[in-house]
Formats: sequence, C-alpha cells, structure tokens
Amino acid sequence: MIPTLTAFAQPPDRGRGLARDMPVRWALAEVGQPYRVRLLAFAAMKEPAHRALHPFGQIPTYEEGDLALFESGAIVLHLAERHPGLLPDDFNARARAIAWMFSAQSTMEPPIVERGMAILVEGDKPWHAERLPLLEDRVRARLGELSRHLAERDWLERGFSAGDLLLVTVLRRLNGSGLLEENPNLLAYVARGEARPAFRQAFAAQSAVFKAASAS
Amino acid sequence: MIPTLTAFAQPPDRGRGLARDMPVRWALAEVGQPYRVRLLAFAAMKEPAHRALHPFGQIPTYEEGDLALFESGAIVLHLAERHPGLLPDDFNARARAIAWMFSAQSTMEPPIVERGMAILVEGDKPWHAERLPLLEDRVRARLGELSRHLAERDWLERGFSAGDLLLVTVLRRLNGSGLLEENPNLLAYVARGEARPAFRQAFAAQSAVFKAASAS
Repeated sequence: MIPTLTAFAQPPDRGRGLARDMPVRWALAEVGQPYRVRLLAFAAMKEPAHRALHPFGQIPTYEEGDLALFESGAIVLHLAERHPGLLPDDFNARARAIAWMFSAQSTMEPPIVERGMAILVEGDKPWHAERLPLLEDRVRARLGELSRHLAERDWLERGFSAGDLLLVTVLRRLNGSGLLEENPNLLAYVARGEARPAFRQAFAAQSAVFKAASAS
Repeated sequence: MIPTLTAFAQPPDRGRGLARDMPVRWALAEVGQPYRVRLLAFAAMKEPAHRALHPFGQIPTYEEGDLALFESGAIVLHLAERHPGLLPDDFNARARAIAWMFSAQSTMEPPIVERGMAILVEGDKPWHAERLPLLEDRVRARLGELSRHLAERDWLERGFSAGDLLLVTVLRRLNGSGLLEENPNLLAYVARGEARPAFRQAFAAQSAVFKAASAS
C-alpha cells in the first residue's frame, strides 16, 4: 500500500528542507518506501477536510489505508516500527533512540524555533535587538550540551537512528545563523546526516515542489 | 525490578505537579508499577554524574537495570509499551495515541511554556506588556483547535491513553491563567484527568516532596 503525505503547495522555506514534511520524506527514503504527496495551499490547510486529518491544520499528514496520522515525530516513529533501519532491534537501545526523538522535538526544537519566530514575526519590534541575544544564548546552552554528549561519535548512540534523523532536521534550522559553527562536531554531524543518500533523495523531492511552484 | 526516577529536591513549582517528573509518576501509577525516587539539588543536576544520565542536565531520568532513559515523553512511552493500560492494542489506534503524545509535547507545549517563561523571565522587561497578549493569542489558537477536536468526547480518541496523560499534564500549566476557562470542554477534560486515582496518587507523591523540603 502506497502511503500519501501532505505538504505545502507553496513551501514557505523556499525548498530548503525546513518544513515538517522533510523528516517524513527522509524516513520514507531511508526505509525505501515509495509514497504519494498531496500538495495543499495555505487556505486548504484550515478547511474542515484537512482538519479532519490534522486537528491543528498543519502539514504533514500521513494516510495509509485506514490509518490517518499527524505529527512528524509520530509518523517517523510509525515508519520506524513498520520497517527495519531506523531503530535498533535491542529493546533498551530502541528506547534510547526514541528518547532522542522526543529530545529533538521537545528539548532542542523549541528554543531554535523561538529564535526563528522572533526574527520572522518580531524583527520590526523595538525590543528585538535586546531580546535576540537572550534567545541565542538559550540555543547556545542546548547546543553546548549536545556537543558534549556527541563528542567524537558519528551518531547519538551506536548507529544512525530515527533520533539522529529528527535531530539533524531540527539543527538544520540554524543553517546561516553561525550558531552551529561554534561547535565543530555538531557542524560535522549535520553534514554527515545531509550526506546520506536518503537525505539527498528527500531533499531533492521537496525542493522540486518549490521549483515547480515558483516557475508556474 | 523497581525503577528509579530523579526529581527536584526543591521543586520550583511548589508541588503543583508542573515539573516533568509528574507525567512519569502518573504513568507509573496508572500501570501500578512501584518506583523509587532520587531527589537532586539544582547544582547536582549539572554535575557529570547526572549528565551521564541526562545530557541536558534536567529531570526526570529513569533507571531500570541496564536501561537509562531521559525525556518524560519517551519514559511514558516506554512504560506504555511494557505495561497494559496506556496504549490501545490495535496497531492503528496505538499509532494515533502516540501522535497525540508528540502533539502534546511539540505542538501544544511550546507556546504554553513560552508564555510561562515570558512571565517568569521577561516580566520586568519594558516590552512584556505588549508581548504577552501576542503569546496568549498563540496559546488561544491551539486551545481553540484542540477544543474543536475534543468536542463532546471524554478523551482524545476512544479511551484514556498516554496521549491524554501528556496533554492534560501540559494543559495544567495554564491553571490560573484564565485561558482554559475560554473552552469549557477543555476545562472539563483537565478535571477528568485530575480525577483519575492514578493522577491523585502521583500528585500527592510529588507534592509531599515540596512539603518535606519547605518544612526542613
């Protein structure tokens, strides 16, 4: 059965792989699962038909037979449970990899997204210049801790897992900020994720949507 | 094997069940699993011994034989996989419940925590009065969407699950804000969670830590 994702018809990240369909596409590519994509205009995301799939009116959603899922982390975990390659077989190692999935989304991502939102939404506010360094220090604290954990390892635990997939996706939001560069092992870690054939395949697929939309 | 959690020796929430050991204690109580607690002073959380268990120097951690876990969402999921009662047996229904676990932590919690942080950390800044309503509107938007999804149901899906457990825990951070009251079905949903015997048992256990700390 070929699953169907939803993604932005007009990607606001201009095809840089920062929208939340990216980790799902990457996971699908890692496990070799073909998929279809249904592109949605912003207005359609808030319509009842889409809200029935995603209560918060966002992308991505994932439909596979009777199953309708939302939340990129949950979709990646579902794929990791259905197919080999994204979680270790050992029960304890598997639980550790899942801990990193939650960590990517609930510990690392919020301060990174908050910094991005402040630049996007509050960039013209009188407080922005004083507030941005506070936000960057919060991101720096997390990056320093992550860098110490990673040390000289290639991946968070023994081998590449869905935890790395989500964490690399989150860290890529800092591309261009200069913050990753303060921790060379994190910069190398992100590059290692981006060098995986499945990452490249997924990146090309989402980037093609933006190119087609901007050409039309 | 009796697992061991870590929690704050001096709970900064004054025993209101807002620290992240609460959902883990609640899940343990739901499945009837006894546990031990190791209380940590703030300074000890940043020491190498604790960092070896939790790369970000936070609570809770969960130790069970050879397994050391961090991230409350991941610990609750681990418990839900080991014991009956927190996830449905049907594979698709189980995936939906896990989607709500991610939703609680990565969609609902960030704007709620950001509002709380702004009050705590930026309450004396000149921009706070203008910025707080923007943050509350972000929380309101999510609450409205959640309220529409929940409608007249008791729980998010067919029966109580780990998704409800995490979501009720997150929504409780809004107690006293007046925001929950704008959606009566959400207020009733939180009260329904708080009325569960396992919630009460976990609440009493974490509250006792604060009472003991403030008496000494």
